[in-house]
Amino acid sequence: MRLVRAILPVVRTASTTAASSPNRVLRVGDAVRERRHFTGADVAAYAAVSGDRNPVHLDDGIAREVGGFQRGRVVHGMLVASVFPSVIAAHFPGAVYASQTLRFAAPVYVGDEVVAQVRALHIRMMAGNGSTSRYLVKFETKCFTGKDEGSLAIDGEAMAVLPTLDWSSETAIEKQCKDGLAGAW
Amino acid sequence: MRLVRAILPVVRTASTTAASSPNRVLRVGDAVRERRHFTGADVAAYAAVSGDRNPVHLDDGIAREVGGFQRGRVVHGMLVASVFPSVIAAHFPGAVYASQTLRFAAPVYVGDEVVAQVRALHIRMMAGNGSTSRYLVKFETKCFTGKDEGSLAIDGEAMAVLPTLDWSSETAIEKQCKDGLAGAW
Repeated sequence: MRLVRAILPVVRTASTTAASSPNRVLRVGDAVRERRHFTGADVAAYAAVSGDRNPVHLDDGIAREVGGFQRGRVVHGMLVASVFPSVIAAHFPGAVYASQTLRFAAPVYVGDEVVAQVRALHIRMMAGNGSTSRYLVKFETKCFTGKDEGSLAIDGEAMAVLPTLDWSSETAIEKQCKDGLAGAW
Repeated sequence: MRLVRAILPVVRTASTTAASSPNRVLRVGDAVRERRHFTGADVAAYAAVSGDRNPVHLDDGIAREVGGFQRGRVVHGMLVASVFPSVIAAHFPGAVYASQTLRFAAPVYVGDEVVAQVRALHIRMMAGNGSTSRYLVKFETKCFTGKDEGSLAIDGEAMAVLPTLDWSSETAIEKQCKDGLAGAW
């Protein structure tokens, strides 16, 4: 795997009170942060699979002269943004993405490290099949870069349908399979 | 390259009048469509580079039972959406993405073919360095799937800063390099 993934502590509020219960349940205000490092190999692999060979991602000279990116090649914004559904799915396997807004506020350069932060803003229970429920959750999605993560690189929101509010529970998935959870679409 | 790319005719309006001039200039209403086919290998490669190993993309059983996707594994929504900046950059190399909204309206299954459509909604000239100009363009971004492309899979809008309004002109990039175009950020 080309990305360096490190799950940072889940926080209940901006004041970073840790939630350490192994069977904790997602609540409004809960956030998870993940640190990533994007290499030139990541950018090349993403260019290959996405077909996006914009030279601002692949050529330092064009990135500087045409894109105005003083430090050269930048990571595809959509590759950086892929961290948001990745983080959500890592904690809620089986999550189904419904929407995402993205404002690319500052560039992420090849070789940069970023910290993505996903915070639950709103949770609504939805009717499922039989005795099961699903949950429509609105997340604030932010990505920071630079010294002390002082620069906001991406700002936005996502909506996802979660099969459970239990953080990262494989057994929850097995339970939902048995119960015949209805789809999100 | 894992994706089957085929640029479909550029159309000036929804009535599909072809714009065939080799040095044509982007105008409001112009659209470009691109056909893509997403394979299991594409999804695996994207999962590796993005770190998004949500089982709805990798396991037919979980995709059906938890995600409710009757035909099994679905393509990552953000991989399907990567076609939008890819299409824009293919025609306007050096474009810099400013924002993107995405509503995932229907699933794209592994093996499905989609047609992405990007249409210019608004064009605004921006001041550049010296004698150069840049252009802030709002695009409608849609992706269709299913029989006769009858199902809207993704709906949204993107904003991008283009170094030129000339369609797919490598020489335009060289010119902008000489003129020292300022960056978008």
